[in-house]
Amino acid sequence: MNGADKLCDVLLVNGVDVCFANPGTSEMHFVAALDRKPEMRCVLGLFEGVVTAAADGYARMAGKPASTLLHTGPGLANGLANLHNARRASTPMINVVGDHATYHLQYDAPLTSDIDSLARPMSKWVGRAQDAASIRKVTEEAYVSAMARRGVSTMILPADAAWGEAQPEDLSPVSVPAAEPASEDAIAEAARALTGGKKVVLLLAGDALREDALEHAGRIAVKTGAQLYSQTSARSARGAGRVPVRPVPYPVDMAVAALSEFEVAICIGKGQPVAFFAYPGKPSLILPPQCAVIDLGDAASDLRGTLERLCDAVGANGAKPVYGVRADFTEPTGQLSPETIGLAVARRMPENAILCDESVTSGRGFGQLAPGCAPHDHLPLTGGAIGIGIPLSVGAAVACPDRKVILLQADGSGMYTVQGLWTQAREQLDVVTIIFSNRSYAILQGEMRNVGVNQFGKNARAMLDLDRPELDWCQIARGMGVEAGRATTIEEFTRLLDVALLGVGPFLIEAMI
Amino acid sequence: MNGADKLCDVLLVNGVDVCFANPGTSEMHFVAALDRKPEMRCVLGLFEGVVTAAADGYARMAGKPASTLLHTGPGLANGLANLHNARRASTPMINVVGDHATYHLQYDAPLTSDIDSLARPMSKWVGRAQDAASIRKVTEEAYVSAMARRGVSTMILPADAAWGEAQPEDLSPVSVPAAEPASEDAIAEAARALTGGKKVVLLLAGDALREDALEHAGRIAVKTGAQLYSQTSARSARGAGRVPVRPVPYPVDMAVAALSEFEVAICIGKGQPVAFFAYPGKPSLILPPQCAVIDLGDAASDLRGTLERLCDAVGANGAKPVYGVRADFTEPTGQLSPETIGLAVARRMPENAILCDESVTSGRGFGQLAPGCAPHDHLPLTGGAIGIGIPLSVGAAVACPDRKVILLQADGSGMYTVQGLWTQAREQLDVVTIIFSNRSYAILQGEMRNVGVNQFGKNARAMLDLDRPELDWCQIARGMGVEAGRATTIEEFTRLLDVALLGVGPFLIEAMI
Repeated sequence: MNGADKLCDVLLVNGVDVCFANPGTSEMHFVAALDRKPEMRCVLGLFEGVVTAAADGYARMAGKPASTLLHTGPGLANGLANLHNARRASTPMINVVGDHATYHLQYDAPLTSDIDSLARPMSKWVGRAQDAASIRKVTEEAYVSAMARRGVSTMILPADAAWGEAQPEDLSPVSVPAAEPASEDAIAEAARALTGGKKVVLLLAGDALREDALEHAGRIAVKTGAQLYSQTSARSARGAGRVPVRPVPYPVDMAVAALSEFEVAICIGKGQPVAFFAYPGKPSLILPPQCAVIDLGDAASDLRGTLERLCDAVGANGAKPVYGVRADFTEPTGQLSPETIGLAVARRMPENAILCDESVTSGRGFGQLAPGCAPHDHLPLTGGAIGIGIPLSVGAAVACPDRKVILLQADGSGMYTVQGLWTQAREQLDVVTIIFSNRSYAILQGEMRNVGVNQFGKNARAMLDLDRPELDWCQIARGMGVEAGRATTIEEFTRLLDVALLGVGPFLIEAMI
Repeated sequence: MNGADKLCDVLLVNGVDVCFANPGTSEMHFVAALDRKPEMRCVLGLFEGVVTAAADGYARMAGKPASTLLHTGPGLANGLANLHNARRASTPMINVVGDHATYHLQYDAPLTSDIDSLARPMSKWVGRAQDAASIRKVTEEAYVSAMARRGVSTMILPADAAWGEAQPEDLSPVSVPAAEPASEDAIAEAARALTGGKKVVLLLAGDALREDALEHAGRIAVKTGAQLYSQTSARSARGAGRVPVRPVPYPVDMAVAALSEFEVAICIGKGQPVAFFAYPGKPSLILPPQCAVIDLGDAASDLRGTLERLCDAVGANGAKPVYGVRADFTEPTGQLSPETIGLAVARRMPENAILCDESVTSGRGFGQLAPGCAPHDHLPLTGGAIGIGIPLSVGAAVACPDRKVILLQADGSGMYTVQGLWTQAREQLDVVTIIFSNRSYAILQGEMRNVGVNQFGKNARAMLDLDRPELDWCQIARGMGVEAGRATTIEEFTRLLDVALLGVGPFLIEAMI
């Protein structure tokens, strides 16, 4: 056996059995090793941004990492933007990045680059196998870091470490340190704040937004009067029968207004909220300056355990949370718009669906409808690096073949990783992609107005409009093997959505809003 | 005026008047400033890999840098693979990467990342404007480095440096140090080798492959019996009336065989050739171990001057070079294949065309036909990071609106930056894109056989085949506004090529080889 075989074996024994890949010459021995392991599922992306976001979507739903296979520095570079999103989602992932043979690096061959420098900004762990003998140790470290620290591990695999001779050995799963809840002191401090008559907000993130954790948060809220807000996170349980949580709004002014009344913020899963961007004369921090902040742990800690203990500490175990209640959404009529599309989707949300969301400006209103929908999981864009949606849906669908995936996708960001549609088709994934076709970077047009520009000249239009020519998403989708239909009215949209939801396999609806 | 206005003014006064862009919120003040400068041509790419390769293609043809506009770390990350190619092409370029306001960085907002770490591997120069007052100095440094050192400059522009107040001032072009030829000693050594009865190869790269430099190389070859080989470079003058140069072959064994006879290698524009990849039991260096190497300068030196002096030193000024002679290529018949496509293109090559080449395996034979074609410039993939072709054609066409651009494009690599087709359409660029549709990563299938795997199992097929489903390039192109036609026979192909060459504006031919 060679080093690449050993790498596959270590991944498999630890339950990592999906590899999102786009290989190159320096990874041929790894490809050959994967080919000897039919229990590994290899999924090709036609661009590495597809590969990394698919691995993100997979891990969000599977609760364990996928591996990726990336080709040297440029292959990693192509995947970095979605690794940035995965980093912000605290997603476990194991990147395997092929590199030249160790002795070949000194010659600075054309594909040589500083992979370590590229990997570090988006990875919690970066390591390099020096030879075949070190592969077990390095792979296990990558796995443990991904799971225990909840993040991206990037393992660099020189070609000679892959093709070098390795010794067969008995392998067993490596042990991962258990996550810890917040300290007793911190929980006691939070309990005092909750029961001390102050206006308290629980800011939930990470696993605090999973169904069981939300139960505890809901009891605390009912018992103490605290309010529940969420920060953008990998995966949130939403819909009827789940405890509804309001998101901290994206626009700074709205966010500041929403949280202005609070005297204490208890942050569970992520630090206090920060403005997405800085603007002249606007604050960077969202909470009021005098608001006290209690930190009850980050994404890598045991957030369910923390909420359970906090629930206990405030005597809320017997409280009955307020749940989302299934709404009888009326069939929308009138214009095709983000609002009517939202209503149509909410009305038809399949039980236990996965809602991937890169709708940017078009989907902002949907969150309000979520508590009235059938229960579903919400997977949003986490790091602001656009181009996550299509491949995120790929990964979620690979992880959960029995669940319908609905993707709310803005057109501008959808084009970033449009190649992911092909993987939807190749793997026959059960994804309904809804393109909000507004033919512009609408969010940026709003931001231009924010900086005081209301009349757009030639260059602003050149950079912010997506018309001239208009994208034809149906042709693009069909060109990649995905069935598609265009809607110009809400009636056409609902007909297409019914067709898409009844069928199995990928379908794209181009909504001309 | 603000810092962003100053940045635009410094770029424009130095002749940088094209900006390939994909902006985000942190760059809105820069977008607004660009909008106040209609003399700047802003060209939108729907993905940053398009932006950076377009800037590369532009500079290769314009001989001066374009600027780019990239949105924070992820926007830069998306452009890095083609910056890697630009680095290997020694292309001058000025990236402007927006970042959060300086005071906002400490809060680690979602889009925050270590831009410097991401930029360094692919940039010769990385700098950060601290405030509006420093923008002139930083921009001038970026420009001087790009021009004098022939490479990528990456300038990080915090939002508050862009929106901060700047003082109006008189600007003038900054002076760029002139490139130096090789030293007299080195030239004398090379001259002795050339006239000493040894078997000598001149390995040309960079500007040594431009028409005037080739004249000198051709005289030296005729006078001394030295042979001319080229290493992959940004731009080569090819075709009838130009001095033909053989490329060092890509496959290691062929490359070693081609250069095995030489006793002295004179390297002009780049160091000695290196194997693209390492393989077990094969060498990393291409030249025979006993071959002496004389280094006459890199891409940033005055290669024309060096060749002129060397020509003088060997007394070759009166020699008449051997030129490529226009061949009477016969109209191809039979199967549609890379060979018949090559013949059809060679026969029809427009005078003074620009041939962008990311044909990978399919185009390898074309180089042999090049000396018999009408004179043209050849712009290849330089750094092995696939996904350069479509946007490279965009940049070349923006730089040279009066010249026909022909793009030879492999299908697998074409998908990487397929979004560039939209920019071809928006800017109505005169580009004929020829897709070699072989529905596979053919180069990797060959490399798998190189590592001894001849029977592909499920996972190898999953990662190396592009069928199931087959891409329909015509639909994809039309979906982005580019006219397209499919050829399944060589007769269909030539008919489509004739149509495409007669017209003006983008046209894509999907060749089903």
